[in-house]
Amino acid sequence: MISTLEIEVRSTELDALGHVNNAKYLEYLEWGRFEWVKENGIPLDFFGTSRLSTVLVNTNVNYRREARLGDRLRIRSWLAEMGRSSFRVGQEIINHRDERVADAMITSVMYDTHTRTSVYIPDDLRAKLEPLVRP
Amino acid sequence: MISTLEIEVRSTELDALGHVNNAKYLEYLEWGRFEWVKENGIPLDFFGTSRLSTVLVNTNVNYRREARLGDRLRIRSWLAEMGRSSFRVGQEIINHRDERVADAMITSVMYDTHTRTSVYIPDDLRAKLEPLVRP
Amino acid sequence: MISTLEIEVRSTELDALGHVNNAKYLEYLEWGRFEWVKENGIPLDFFGTSRLSTVLVNTNVNYRREARLGDRLRIRSWLAEMGRSSFRVGQEIINHRDERVADAMITSVMYDTHTRTSVYIPDDLRAKLEPLVRP
Amino acid sequence: MISTLEIEVRSTELDALGHVNNAKYLEYLEWGRFEWVKENGIPLDFFGTSRLSTVLVNTNVNYRREARLGDRLRIRSWLAEMGRSSFRVGQEIINHRDERVADAMITSVMYDTHTRTSVYIPDDLRAKLEPLVRP
Repeated sequence: MISTLEIEVRSTELDALGHVNNAKYLEYLEWGRFEWVKENGIPLDFFGTSRLSTVLVNTNVNYRREARLGDRLRIRSWLAEMGRSSFRVGQEIINHRDERVADAMITSVMYDTHTRTSVYIPDDLRAKLEPLVRP
Repeated sequence: MISTLEIEVRSTELDALGHVNNAKYLEYLEWGRFEWVKENGIPLDFFGTSRLSTVLVNTNVNYRREARLGDRLRIRSWLAEMGRSSFRVGQEIINHRDERVADAMITSVMYDTHTRTSVYIPDDLRAKLEPLVRP
Repeated sequence: MISTLEIEVRSTELDALGHVNNAKYLEYLEWGRFEWVKENGIPLDFFGTSRLSTVLVNTNVNYRREARLGDRLRIRSWLAEMGRSSFRVGQEIINHRDERVADAMITSVMYDTHTRTSVYIPDDLRAKLEPLVRP
Repeated sequence: MISTLEIEVRSTELDALGHVNNAKYLEYLEWGRFEWVKENGIPLDFFGTSRLSTVLVNTNVNYRREARLGDRLRIRSWLAEMGRSSFRVGQEIINHRDERVADAMITSVMYDTHTRTSVYIPDDLRAKLEPLVRP
């Protein structure tokens, strides 16, 4: 239910202060959410041609520690909450010294790519997601 | 007091969905904050050797609309709130059709690069910042 | 014939050495080529659904000077050479002190997105491109 | 002597064509060179305070195949040639189907960060590098 993606901080992810730039954390978090979708076998094909997709509406990130070149980070992701058409993924980034580097709450809505409007989460997907919720 | 940075969406800022990736918005917002600092003559030298710096602690971003290749965006930034050692910058991204693409609240703390701890905002800097606050 | 795109170096384009990272130059150059296509009215729709596209096969970049935060850069691009199915775009990046920051030769081939093979440059496009060649 | 770095293509490394953008390859290659330096115990501290550093002068990259989301790539790097003050690193990127995605030749010069000029490769470093050359 909680997925963990392990990555290593690369040279081009640092900014002029010598640490990982705040925007790069959002990339790390996106990679973690893709891992969550894959590990849990969620039938969402973000870059494909499927009609049902999701749209990001809010990212709320707490930056707790610097990440530096060569740091090995674990990005943990879980489904924190589900509404009628929206859902929230909780995430945290932990370094190899077991320190919390960041945590985040990411809110998305279910989206119909044909009508280009938000829609209710379909029943079959809801049935699949419900047991994964972990507040 | 409110600074405006104008940019144009570039090809490498798009993701596989053909719109600006959510992480790239955080870069746009950082560019906007640098512009705010410059336009208001704030004596903070982020990448230099000055003792006093700031550390980002939270980013909260609402994504309201897609941005696409060639869109011309205005990034508006202002000082929204000031505490003893923390301050908040409000920001919004507006496209060339005057639609709001995103808005954000960015929280930072004053930081001493020698002692590596957060510190109170010094009186002279506070005096300079106070008239700029615009809730 | 020679297009010029003006940009300003942004904070997130710097690496830990405090200058623009070598990979970012390739982004700048791509932005410059998009500008060349636009300014010259070339009927190539890179991100659209047109059948005819181009594929990059080689980038050769000379790095001559550092670029730093706030530098204003001009990216100059021109069609340097045209073969049966390939063409080369020459590019250079000049800073606001009129110093050459980088120059590059970028080789691409014409590509059919349906058959997924390289193809000859069509006669009508060739007729449009030929007068633009500037070795 | 030849180092191999294994990575996986991440969502934010794709461009609007759904494949890894050409500029991102340059980042992959830089990550590979850092790995080569580390694996071979080369005493160069790129982001530190050491006097001796290197400056990139040319990148020459052949793009041979697309890389797509989830592709697992191996970045192979070796010292290909050494001059008085310059050296060349050969690199290739291979995907998990053993296809060559790209190859590259990267030229750098030895650089004195105090005098800010290129310098001869010092004898002790040369003695360490010479047995690693693999044309």
